[in-house]
Amino acid sequence: MATVESISASIAALNESIETTNGGLDVFYLLFAGAMVFFMQAGFAMLCAGSIRAKNVKNIMLKNILDACGGAVGFWTIGYAFAYGGADSSKITFIGNSDFVLANIHDGASLIGWFFQFAFAATAATIVAGTVAERCKFEAYIAYSLMLTGFVYPVVVHSIWSSSGFLSAFTDDANKFLGSGMIDFAGSGVVHMTGGVTALIAAKILGPRIGRFYDADGNELAEPVSFPPHSVALQVLGTFILWVGWYGFNPGSTLGISPAGYADVAALCAVTTTLAAAAGSVSAMFTDMVMTRKATGETMYDITMCMNGALSGLVGITAGCSVCEPWAALVIGIVAGWVYIFWSNLLVKLKIDDAVDAIPVHFGNGMWGCIATGLFASPGLVDNAYGTPNYGWFYNWGMGNGTGKLLAVEIIGVLFIIGWVGLIMIPYFMLLNAMGLFRVDALEEEVGLDISHHKGAAYDLSGPSEDVKEKYEISNSQRKKEIVLPAEGEENA
Amino acid sequence: MATVESISASIAALNESIETTNGGLDVFYLLFAGAMVFFMQAGFAMLCAGSIRAKNVKNIMLKNILDACGGAVGFWTIGYAFAYGGADSSKITFIGNSDFVLANIHDGASLIGWFFQFAFAATAATIVAGTVAERCKFEAYIAYSLMLTGFVYPVVVHSIWSSSGFLSAFTDDANKFLGSGMIDFAGSGVVHMTGGVTALIAAKILGPRIGRFYDADGNELAEPVSFPPHSVALQVLGTFILWVGWYGFNPGSTLGISPAGYADVAALCAVTTTLAAAAGSVSAMFTDMVMTRKATGETMYDITMCMNGALSGLVGITAGCSVCEPWAALVIGIVAGWVYIFWSNLLVKLKIDDAVDAIPVHFGNGMWGCIATGLFASPGLVDNAYGTPNYGWFYNWGMGNGTGKLLAVEIIGVLFIIGWVGLIMIPYFMLLNAMGLFRVDALEEEVGLDISHHKGAAYDLSGPSEDVKEKYEISNSQRKKEIVLPAEGEENA
Amino acid sequence: MATVESISASIAALNESIETTNGGLDVFYLLFAGAMVFFMQAGFAMLCAGSIRAKNVKNIMLKNILDACGGAVGFWTIGYAFAYGGADSSKITFIGNSDFVLANIHDGASLIGWFFQFAFAATAATIVAGTVAERCKFEAYIAYSLMLTGFVYPVVVHSIWSSSGFLSAFTDDANKFLGSGMIDFAGSGVVHMTGGVTALIAAKILGPRIGRFYDADGNELAEPVSFPPHSVALQVLGTFILWVGWYGFNPGSTLGISPAGYADVAALCAVTTTLAAAAGSVSAMFTDMVMTRKATGETMYDITMCMNGALSGLVGITAGCSVCEPWAALVIGIVAGWVYIFWSNLLVKLKIDDAVDAIPVHFGNGMWGCIATGLFASPGLVDNAYGTPNYGWFYNWGMGNGTGKLLAVEIIGVLFIIGWVGLIMIPYFMLLNAMGLFRVDALEEEVGLDISHHKGAAYDLSGPSEDVKEKYEISNSQRKKEIVLPAEGEENA
Repeated sequence: MATVESISASIAALNESIETTNGGLDVFYLLFAGAMVFFMQAGFAMLCAGSIRAKNVKNIMLKNILDACGGAVGFWTIGYAFAYGGADSSKITFIGNSDFVLANIHDGASLIGWFFQFAFAATAATIVAGTVAERCKFEAYIAYSLMLTGFVYPVVVHSIWSSSGFLSAFTDDANKFLGSGMIDFAGSGVVHMTGGVTALIAAKILGPRIGRFYDADGNELAEPVSFPPHSVALQVLGTFILWVGWYGFNPGSTLGISPAGYADVAALCAVTTTLAAAAGSVSAMFTDMVMTRKATGETMYDITMCMNGALSGLVGITAGCSVCEPWAALVIGIVAGWVYIFWSNLLVKLKIDDAVDAIPVHFGNGMWGCIATGLFASPGLVDNAYGTPNYGWFYNWGMGNGTGKLLAVEIIGVLFIIGWVGLIMIPYFMLLNAMGLFRVDALEEEVGLDISHHKGAAYDLSGPSEDVKEKYEISNSQRKKEIVLPAEGEENA
Repeated sequence: MATVESISASIAALNESIETTNGGLDVFYLLFAGAMVFFMQAGFAMLCAGSIRAKNVKNIMLKNILDACGGAVGFWTIGYAFAYGGADSSKITFIGNSDFVLANIHDGASLIGWFFQFAFAATAATIVAGTVAERCKFEAYIAYSLMLTGFVYPVVVHSIWSSSGFLSAFTDDANKFLGSGMIDFAGSGVVHMTGGVTALIAAKILGPRIGRFYDADGNELAEPVSFPPHSVALQVLGTFILWVGWYGFNPGSTLGISPAGYADVAALCAVTTTLAAAAGSVSAMFTDMVMTRKATGETMYDITMCMNGALSGLVGITAGCSVCEPWAALVIGIVAGWVYIFWSNLLVKLKIDDAVDAIPVHFGNGMWGCIATGLFASPGLVDNAYGTPNYGWFYNWGMGNGTGKLLAVEIIGVLFIIGWVGLIMIPYFMLLNAMGLFRVDALEEEVGLDISHHKGAAYDLSGPSEDVKEKYEISNSQRKKEIVLPAEGEENA
Repeated sequence: MATVESISASIAALNESIETTNGGLDVFYLLFAGAMVFFMQAGFAMLCAGSIRAKNVKNIMLKNILDACGGAVGFWTIGYAFAYGGADSSKITFIGNSDFVLANIHDGASLIGWFFQFAFAATAATIVAGTVAERCKFEAYIAYSLMLTGFVYPVVVHSIWSSSGFLSAFTDDANKFLGSGMIDFAGSGVVHMTGGVTALIAAKILGPRIGRFYDADGNELAEPVSFPPHSVALQVLGTFILWVGWYGFNPGSTLGISPAGYADVAALCAVTTTLAAAAGSVSAMFTDMVMTRKATGETMYDITMCMNGALSGLVGITAGCSVCEPWAALVIGIVAGWVYIFWSNLLVKLKIDDAVDAIPVHFGNGMWGCIATGLFASPGLVDNAYGTPNYGWFYNWGMGNGTGKLLAVEIIGVLFIIGWVGLIMIPYFMLLNAMGLFRVDALEEEVGLDISHHKGAAYDLSGPSEDVKEKYEISNSQRKKEIVLPAEGEENA
């Protein structure tokens, strides 16, 4: 018969069993989410490649692959250590300082955590690739990509996501900036703005592609020239892959699913992510349609608007996906579509050439996402996900209590990211540029980077020669002499 | 020492822990499955775009993206409420009536349930896009897509899947139609037939593409003309993505994995789904090969047959994936291949032009899937998954007990879907057509919708001009004067 | 009040609850992992199709789809039974002999196990498709694909992975070869070498494509000719899909995530897989860059090297992903890049024509993966994952205890796979060849297999005729007469 001792032992064993199950479940959760985020690399590759001219396809895709590879190596050696190493919620530090090369780390939770975080780092780096496409030197790209994933991005992560960051929502209460820290759940600021600011700086210093705003001799063109995307099919594929991957990016940012309450947050993230993407897409496309109709009288539906609008909505909801109501996600998405159009037009006016419009999507809407969180974060949801006392400004309005504090933190976070990334990347790119390492020469640009740097064109769609076809036809028809030939139209029926 | 009270408390805490873990696990399961189903949107986009002519690629893909977006908004505002709102297993209703815009819903299980169901709704809508490709007005598409996801589809869902539906297997026993309700596990009927019937109606009213059965002046052609797919690579990619996504669609339809027995059902679904797809593919391709050989003497393996055969097998097993033995899945798949060929030929005879053969796949095999369930549902598996007393006709044969009841319900379900969708969509499309809102004008059709409605062609594969290439070659060879050039053949070695 | 009896019952119920949860979790885990591995079929299809000439795209993709289909049917009927049927850890058998057509199997764990294993079998078969592309008869392909998934591959699986295999690490201790059995965690040997050896044999017997090493009349060319890939975009897409799928392939090979310790192993696999892929990619590309620069003076970054390098790293880490430290994974990946280049050059020297370089990736690095495991397997990790007493040679060096035993088993495993596959496939392919069933005739090869066997070309990228465009322009400009036209350059702004 069972004794009290044996019962206590049984209960202890049960608790351990559940712990083990939860451990397995959470590792699985981050494996899934990390794989989804990694898959976004394919999305960026397809979207960027589709958006540019056929003569630079190999170049951009090579950069996309190497982002992932460089990101892995850079984040393993130093990036992860700088971001999360030795974090201690009781004190604020500028940068992490332990766990280089994952030495001495063997538990599943930490290892899969690295995997998930690596995928984020690679995302930050890859955002830049599209903007500087078609004219950036390969060596320069590798140099700044390593700089970004190894140092610049980890400091941002440390400041906002580690428990020792000065803007972090995960420090001890005493250390929380304005009593709450920044809410940037999955990284509108940390990931997308970091990539987006870098892209903006790079595009400004690198200069526009020949023939976009100026001709080969440097004369200003009467009108800016758009280079049409070489394959809308690749763009659409990339967009869908990114959207799907975002279901790892946003819900996965709970970093676990077994603790009480986490499942509610993750499920909310799936819903808000969906609605913001949908709203951004519809908003950007119809706004553009109306604007174009006003200007030209023609009714045109622009698939580029539709895609970049969806991505804008996704970036815009990334900071607040866990703390905004579904209706707020819809509003955030609608505004994200407008933010996209505004920034896209602004860049043209400033003659800053972004080959894939990554700056409007990731920088413009990264900012919007942080600010929107400061406006729309709902009290109940913030309590649930963060347990901090500052809520979106729209909820505090006139309450007198903490009004605008969260919004203030979000804005400070935005300024910090711009400042920090600018501090490092502006001199870095200027140096690269001054040393002649940043931009390919004009003739290489005109002939395309694939021929000049990557052994030849990305496509060869030629079929058999007419000669061979004819020979085959003759031989074939002789073979079939006795057989009734089908009418041409039936071949696919 | 542990007291009885403390032990009881420990046990209560353990029960709660397990509950929490199970909640997390089930939310994660539907997040995974929903993301997979959402990914099918990419599959449909690639498959449809690949299947049509290059001049309409932007148009079809834009429709595919907007399906997802409109589906999200429509299903959030009203669709979900109509489908599942206020369901009560003790009474039968025609339509749901609560939970509009997910108001007051904050638990993870419901939120992720919405996400999963939204992905299904978007699938139903997107099925139609392919059929009416290359000639349907963009505005008409948006109009009926919203109608479908917001109203028509939710009523079908309510009738068959909610616990208040008149054909549902989840009502109280007293309310179960013929004592069992319809078994349509993942939606051969609910999703695929709803999309498929709509596609059939639309294609009939819209009329064939110019040059398919009639020339531009309306004269009948001697033979129907097939327009070859513009990219088989996109078709194959789309097919694989759809197949993969089906592992979310079918196993995910358990709606959870933690309750006892659910894992057995989900695992069975993965197996039957695989076998039916494989069998459908092989069946359609070899049947077509033999038929073609008989007609022409040539041995030709048709990849379109292979792909649509696989999709036919997938649609065909969707209703019964949880209640059919693996061998039955194989048989269902083989027949699905034949059903596809039969419907594909029938449409040609009826001069109904389906640009991507979605009607044979989704309507033809949606019906077959429901009927097959009425034939092959195995007693043990039905008991396990549904706990209802009616089994497939092949198992009841001669048993005298309940013979044919399940088959009867399935057929009634099929007729209900055809009737309901027809009731709404026939007048709807006729109205659109009568108002001149349904079809683009002939010249727009001939030049292609991308140029006429979407700002230009989807592809620009041109490389650098010969001029530039020559200039580059000269400059390059001067630079390399002293260097030994590699032989051309080595460049890739 | 609670009695001891009721408490015991509660505890029993709790244990059962946890069991149920764990069962659900593990089925879900393999559903996820199996779906990811299945998705690799899409990756292979895209990679292979992109790598070859446009005129054979339908053919290779059809083979890829049918691999999956044939694999499903073959592995269901006999393959799974031969691989795992009736395994008994107390005795060694050559081949399994029960569970044909999954008869009498209804538990979720076994069903989802079949699904996961089927996806592996399909992978083994599909590796060969690329190598023999552009010249292999369709019927021959089907014949050997069935042979491989139904018989040859299952015997390898049985020998190394079932608990009755002579090289297995899962038998009773008494039966473990050299006291440990072979460590091939996810199948560098079992899957990749089996496919790779078959590819090598097939390529040798089938002969090179016309114009690769010899002209159409059989005269040797002065230099080998490389046929450029027809679409780098498809290659990159395929590579990324494969890499993502590997997160199912490697971590999924724990076959469960709920038992204690499994999550640590799965997480480690995700990390090592990432680092090896990244290292392989960088290693192959830069090594090639340096070699090319030495030979020609030009600095060229080759994206094919980058992609095949990543895949080489992935294949190379597959055997040891669960037992190697992250730093070792990096080293294994770097060497994998060199192994790739070595084998790729060797095949050219031997005039063996591998249309997609699958032999260097899967055979060369499959071998390297097994050997690397014999070198780098870390004691702590082997204890953790396998509980066997033999470790990598680098750790045993000079310890005198068991030195080199694991390495010896790995080498024996490599030789066994080469021997067994050769024993069956060499005569099989020679027979096919002697009967004239292996290779298409020369004219069919030159015109391309798509035209000669699959009803026409894979692409038709032609837009509307100039005629129609002009007609449309005229009509359109008349319509817009009164409206101000936008300048061309603004269209995308």
